[in-house]
Amino acid sequence: MNILAELAGYIAGICTAICFLPQTLQTIKSKDVQDLSLASYIIYCTGMICWILYGIYLHSLQMILFNLISLGFAGTILYMIVKYKNAAGKISRQRK
Amino acid sequence: MNILAELAGYIAGICTAICFLPQTLQTIKSKDVQDLSLASYIIYCTGMICWILYGIYLHSLQMILFNLISLGFAGTILYMIVKYKNAAGKISRQRK
Repeated sequence: MNILAELAGYIAGICTAICFLPQTLQTIKSKDVQDLSLASYIIYCTGMICWILYGIYLHSLQMILFNLISLGFAGTILYMIVKYKNAAGKISRQRK
Repeated sequence: MNILAELAGYIAGICTAICFLPQTLQTIKSKDVQDLSLASYIIYCTGMICWILYGIYLHSLQMILFNLISLGFAGTILYMIVKYKNAAGKISRQRK
């Protein structure tokens, strides 16, 4: 049970770290952010920063590392949402 | 420091729990899933299931609860991605 639980913990950490890699690649390629929720990514990134701070307090290198990677991907998506939604807004206004 | 760190842990947990609430509401409303990555949500939900299992092992009610809420939202989004992407595929084939 102990090994299985530790394994679950590792898989969970790795999933958290890399879950937004496919979304990052897709959005870099398509530059389409229309269906992505800005609020969700703001909350997610805030959460990741808090997990990193909590990881520093607990001296947990794994917690810091996994959440730092996740913040990297989610932060990139957040940046693209702001960038491309503004760009789309400008195009929309120019057409009017 | 102790109280601040515990606070960071709580904020992190709450952010993890509710981060996909805005995305869920937006996608329920728009039914547009084109820009959402199926792979990202599969990995995210897998991670949440593993965190819940790890939380059960650690007897951490907070870990179980926060990740269960997050799984609820992310699972709903995952369901909508599969449902609406398939629907979009059918419409596209019918048009041909």
